[in-house]
Amino acid sequence: LNADEGENVAPDFSEHRALHVALIGGTHGNELNGAWLIERWRRNGKLIARESFQTHLLLGNPKALHQVRRYVDQDLNRSFGDMSAPTPREVSRARNYEEERARVLREQLETFRVIPDGVLIDLHNTTANMGLSLIFVNRSQFNLKLAAWVQKHMPEVRAYCWLDETVPRRSSTSLVDRGITLEVGPVANGIVHGDLFWKTERTVQHMLDFIEAYNRGAVQFDGSDEVELFVHERSVDFPRDEKDRIAGFIHPELQDRDYQLLEPGAPIFQSIDGQVVRYSGEEGRYPVFVNEAAYYEKRIAFSLTRRETRRV
Amino acid sequence: LNADEGENVAPDFSEHRALHVALIGGTHGNELNGAWLIERWRRNGKLIARESFQTHLLLGNPKALHQVRRYVDQDLNRSFGDMSAPTPREVSRARNYEEERARVLREQLETFRVIPDGVLIDLHNTTANMGLSLIFVNRSQFNLKLAAWVQKHMPEVRAYCWLDETVPRRSSTSLVDRGITLEVGPVANGIVHGDLFWKTERTVQHMLDFIEAYNRGAVQFDGSDEVELFVHERSVDFPRDEKDRIAGFIHPELQDRDYQLLEPGAPIFQSIDGQVVRYSGEEGRYPVFVNEAAYYEKRIAFSLTRRETRRV
Repeated sequence: LNADEGENVAPDFSEHRALHVALIGGTHGNELNGAWLIERWRRNGKLIARESFQTHLLLGNPKALHQVRRYVDQDLNRSFGDMSAPTPREVSRARNYEEERARVLREQLETFRVIPDGVLIDLHNTTANMGLSLIFVNRSQFNLKLAAWVQKHMPEVRAYCWLDETVPRRSSTSLVDRGITLEVGPVANGIVHGDLFWKTERTVQHMLDFIEAYNRGAVQFDGSDEVELFVHERSVDFPRDEKDRIAGFIHPELQDRDYQLLEPGAPIFQSIDGQVVRYSGEEGRYPVFVNEAAYYEKRIAFSLTRRETRRV
Repeated sequence: LNADEGENVAPDFSEHRALHVALIGGTHGNELNGAWLIERWRRNGKLIARESFQTHLLLGNPKALHQVRRYVDQDLNRSFGDMSAPTPREVSRARNYEEERARVLREQLETFRVIPDGVLIDLHNTTANMGLSLIFVNRSQFNLKLAAWVQKHMPEVRAYCWLDETVPRRSSTSLVDRGITLEVGPVANGIVHGDLFWKTERTVQHMLDFIEAYNRGAVQFDGSDEVELFVHERSVDFPRDEKDRIAGFIHPELQDRDYQLLEPGAPIFQSIDGQVVRYSGEEGRYPVFVNEAAYYEKRIAFSLTRRETRRV
């Protein structure tokens, strides 16, 4: 243990409560709103300053931002999985850019003490009509209470839980228990969308206020709040032809209907020759990420969630 | 002259009138609707067949489409300028991909007899809220009458004339007098948008019907139609900082207001610190291409047009 890094300092109660915060923008280089907000807050730190904690600002993928591409070598937000120290042989090999960025970001988050027990907020845009969505990879009391707090001020904000233990955790937010993706859309890749820029900032402000209240011991996990969650069930691929090529697109009646109940029999796809594919799955499902550009390559046309309510 | 290529066939009147047509999709590799329509029509040629002419289908930029990028080396739609035959030295050099594609496409259009006197329709998408826009690089009687015909069936279709003799002609549509860009938005890059997919096809159908009527001599240029044109005046760059970096974004009140009158004093930009920039230009101007992703690098935040009416 290295005393310079603070591990030998005996923790006291107040320090234990002081969760530090990292805000990341530009994890995907063609999602500009988050990266521009990071720049705004760098110039005006007061906007994200609170008394009980430090807020650290990070740009996820500078090289991809410069090229206005999602990524250079691989999706950075799928690069935070196995990051064991490289062997000398691996170091001598040329590593890919996002693997390097994931390692650098993790080290910074450790230095800031966001890893292991701080709060990481990663700002994203989607071409889907998801409005302002908080995405969690668990249903911790902290995350649920944060969602309830934000929704009290901005009822339009949704909470979406990606819980799938079969999928290795590789997103930035999987590095900590208190990891939150703020997914905002619809925004085309490569543009700054003014209206959603300001709404994203407002959402972040409420999250920081919540963390401040939490650090001060002013948040009670007493079941006084109810929060509605959209819990991930499964993703649905596009129709494909015999050569495994995408052979249809999102039906106009499903386009932009994220978070709206999908009735069995409702049209979901249209083939290139106009044939309609209808939904034949379970009842009580709500689609999200409908027609997200980056998910064509991931074989995801949309995802299905079920709705549940929790008290926290 | 090579008799095999038909140059020695004496033209007769009917041949003279038979304008042949090329439809191009995927000139930009991240604008998917047009490329998918080309594939649809390849499978079902009846949809674009007419009696008096041949309709040829072309994919503009297959390599960029495969990578879902606008272009590989340079914008293909700015590559149709000086295409004089390469010198042996140039041929021996590695040429860039879009220069090669422009040469190949031009040769195909010559073979199809679309160059010099046919009709070229190039299908594009924009992140701007331009609906269905016909873009011309001249105000020929043919183009204006075609616009009037289409608008009679689909009044929401706009006609935008890019007339700027100071700019070298480098778009595909500048290869012929009867060149028409069909610009459709808002569509994010990298997605197929179902509703606009079908509306694009409907617009193309009406254009083909017009050409059929023209070839049959059923179109009278008798001033019986009135057409409203939005004529390009100038483009407006983003605000920039002392290092020439973009320092602001489209104001939420300008976003999505393509083709709507821009009053002097109206907000057009917001800086990253929230300061509002207001429009201080001429009266009677209508913005287009508001917040088109691909134009950030071209120093265009939006363009200004003036409205005029012509009889044709």
